[in-house]
Amino acid sequence: MIRLALAMEGHAGQAVTLNEADWHYVAGVMRRNVGDAIEVLAQDGLVWRARITAQCQLLLEERVVGNAPPRRSITLYQALLKGDHFSDVVERGTEAGIARFVPVVTERSIVREVSPNKAARWRTVAKEASEQSRREAVPTIEPGVRLADLRAPEGADAYVLDPRAPHERAWAEDTSRSVALVVGPEGGFTPGEYAFLYDKGFRPLSLGPRVYRAENAGAFAAVLFLQ
Amino acid sequence: MIRLALAMEGHAGQAVTLNEADWHYVAGVMRRNVGDAIEVLAQDGLVWRARITAQCQLLLEERVVGNAPPRRSITLYQALLKGDHFSDVVERGTEAGIARFVPVVTERSIVREVSPNKAARWRTVAKEASEQSRREAVPTIEPGVRLADLRAPEGADAYVLDPRAPHERAWAEDTSRSVALVVGPEGGFTPGEYAFLYDKGFRPLSLGPRVYRAENAGAFAAVLFLQ
Repeated sequence: MIRLALAMEGHAGQAVTLNEADWHYVAGVMRRNVGDAIEVLAQDGLVWRARITAQCQLLLEERVVGNAPPRRSITLYQALLKGDHFSDVVERGTEAGIARFVPVVTERSIVREVSPNKAARWRTVAKEASEQSRREAVPTIEPGVRLADLRAPEGADAYVLDPRAPHERAWAEDTSRSVALVVGPEGGFTPGEYAFLYDKGFRPLSLGPRVYRAENAGAFAAVLFLQ
Repeated sequence: MIRLALAMEGHAGQAVTLNEADWHYVAGVMRRNVGDAIEVLAQDGLVWRARITAQCQLLLEERVVGNAPPRRSITLYQALLKGDHFSDVVERGTEAGIARFVPVVTERSIVREVSPNKAARWRTVAKEASEQSRREAVPTIEPGVRLADLRAPEGADAYVLDPRAPHERAWAEDTSRSVALVVGPEGGFTPGEYAFLYDKGFRPLSLGPRVYRAENAGAFAAVLFLQ
């Protein structure tokens, strides 16, 4: 469904006349014709389903309630990072569609606990990034856990990002199952931690030949799983 | 090809004995057997092709020269952004595999020129992000251009990120053609600018229902095109 942003507020049953540039976009570029439905994003942020009734003419039919939720629910188990980098993870990951963030304390984590201030700040970042990216549901941020408490959740596809893994494009398998994704700290997991996670049911996942920083890896993976 | 990071330096013909955790990873988790080839990342950053000769035993055969270049060459035409956000674009985009960045001045660009200092800084960011992500080739950063000078390059798949476009997963078409990608400034392109770009041969592209900030959109798109 194409979406046209218009400088107006809308109501059901309203007729709208498009200017030449918008009509060129709808008809010339996007090849939509009389009788087709499109979406209109109004100035107040509401989205309307509209019908093309004639050249340059739309009729607003009904309000569209938000965006569909991401087609797979993704939980990111992210090792705590130095400084404020976990905020970056929440910001980029929220934009990318992650549903739930779980901070994890690992052997190489320099930061080893989640202060109430930090947790509150991450919730604010998640809320603002949700608004920015027009997500209806704000992702949840869970209390911190120790790596030793992680288990692959039942019914989910559970992965550890591991740059040693072969590039097998697991995200391209068509599935609607939930995804549990574990991402290490700046220095990576220790061999013992990888071994522990594989023992607990997680599978190795590579995002390809390039190596991503911890702040980007979770978001990049979510973009692939939700495409 | 799986890759094992080992705390050693290597030479051709060297025999290596793996510890139990590494052998468990190779044989138990990744299911590689005697006779299979794997890669070894040595402490000095060099990568070796190695053969499994017996349980816990590897033989380093030859040096692997860097990672393969990204399978499609991506040029990002990125509208100039406020403050230092263009640096973020270069950093994330380099990790994601973009080959060439072209800064673009648009109607809504608040920053309207590229100072020599800024250009030098972006080149440093590109170099550091290349090393971080183990890319052999550092992406190039071109001088700034005006939007009015853009044309879809011949022989490339040319797109404008447009949140109004239908979600058609253009990146999933299997092709090795180059990609030219135009991403707007914080406030988006004006309707006239979109119309101009479509007239010059670019096609509208949506990355899905979520809306990405300008700092992330180019990198997220590159991750999809290079998967």
